[in-house]
Amino acid sequence: MKKINVMDRVYAANEEWAEANRNLLKENGSVMLNLIGSPGAGKTALIEQTIPRVSDFRSPAVIEGDLATSRDADRVRKTGAPAYQINTGSGCHLNARLVNTALLDLYKKGGHDLIFVENVGNLVCPAEFDIGEHAKIAVLSVAEGDDKIEKYPLLFARASALVVTKIDLLAHTDFRTEKVKRDYERLNKRGRTFIVDNLRGDGFDGWIEFLKRL
Amino acid sequence: MKKINVMDRVYAANEEWAEANRNLLKENGSVMLNLIGSPGAGKTALIEQTIPRVSDFRSPAVIEGDLATSRDADRVRKTGAPAYQINTGSGCHLNARLVNTALLDLYKKGGHDLIFVENVGNLVCPAEFDIGEHAKIAVLSVAEGDDKIEKYPLLFARASALVVTKIDLLAHTDFRTEKVKRDYERLNKRGRTFIVDNLRGDGFDGWIEFLKRL
Repeated sequence: MKKINVMDRVYAANEEWAEANRNLLKENGSVMLNLIGSPGAGKTALIEQTIPRVSDFRSPAVIEGDLATSRDADRVRKTGAPAYQINTGSGCHLNARLVNTALLDLYKKGGHDLIFVENVGNLVCPAEFDIGEHAKIAVLSVAEGDDKIEKYPLLFARASALVVTKIDLLAHTDFRTEKVKRDYERLNKRGRTFIVDNLRGDGFDGWIEFLKRL
Repeated sequence: MKKINVMDRVYAANEEWAEANRNLLKENGSVMLNLIGSPGAGKTALIEQTIPRVSDFRSPAVIEGDLATSRDADRVRKTGAPAYQINTGSGCHLNARLVNTALLDLYKKGGHDLIFVENVGNLVCPAEFDIGEHAKIAVLSVAEGDDKIEKYPLLFARASALVVTKIDLLAHTDFRTEKVKRDYERLNKRGRTFIVDNLRGDGFDGWIEFLKRL
């Protein structure tokens, strides 16, 4: 029981910052998406390919979460969008307070109405921490195998959309996209599935349409 | 400060169970390895390919950790080795108490002197929880990208060996094995790197030799 109470306090403190983030996003007319997936799922490449495709109808900015290095923020800045790097040290997820600091910094530099948050590469913990986002987006690469929806249901049950990445590797794996789509949409009746080649930028129409409607 | 004290208590309670596991392993003359890697890194396939190659000099058994399903234990049992499935629900890592229950169950069924623990797919949290293992083994797939040692240093600094998997995908990615080996061995002077095709079972000699010497 003690452990549950401790976690309840952690979640409650986080929820206050998440609420602050929701207010901040509202004041700035922004939508914020929380991208969650394993290390190497292709989250950064998905953002790199998405930024130029939304820039005619949105002003995007990116918050990057990693244990160490500013590598991902450096990559994203080459698209022209501003990026704020959070280093968590040994932390396995972004919390709402860290994201608040990042949002305040980004808004100081300009108006942004579509904020992508790339969470720490981890299919488990980030799903449990509300950062004030409008939607969680699950990112799963073909190379990870098609049993992941069943084995890590926590995230997929909470994610408003699933982006299946690295479709260029499909021919070299036994990944079944139809099975994954079916498993995800069974867990999550309103979930939308998008299948993209995030390396070459193919198959982005549905995903961009989804972003347009947010 | 409060948060640090809470985590200190969690680690201290875990450490007592880890010590109990070390005693249990010693009594049974067993070596236990803690395999840690992202979801879909190929940990189960690595175990499936390893079991038949160690069975002439060791009696292996497997403890599988997943949020949900008994899929991995079912796969492993087909090799003939006993497997105990732990389901953590929403838990992001195995703790020493869960592993203790699994060990007691496995020993009830027979003598085993090489225990592989496949931790929950996660590059972050499992590295922080001692389960009483003799060594942590990091598992990284070619498909995850060659920047992971720098971005997730916590695990790699603590792992006695790194097994690079899915080398069959090398030609379809920009993964540089030499860079990864260099990054890992810089972090971890005594670390050993093994590069394997865990799908077809090629390149296992060095890894099996390492297991023989434990």
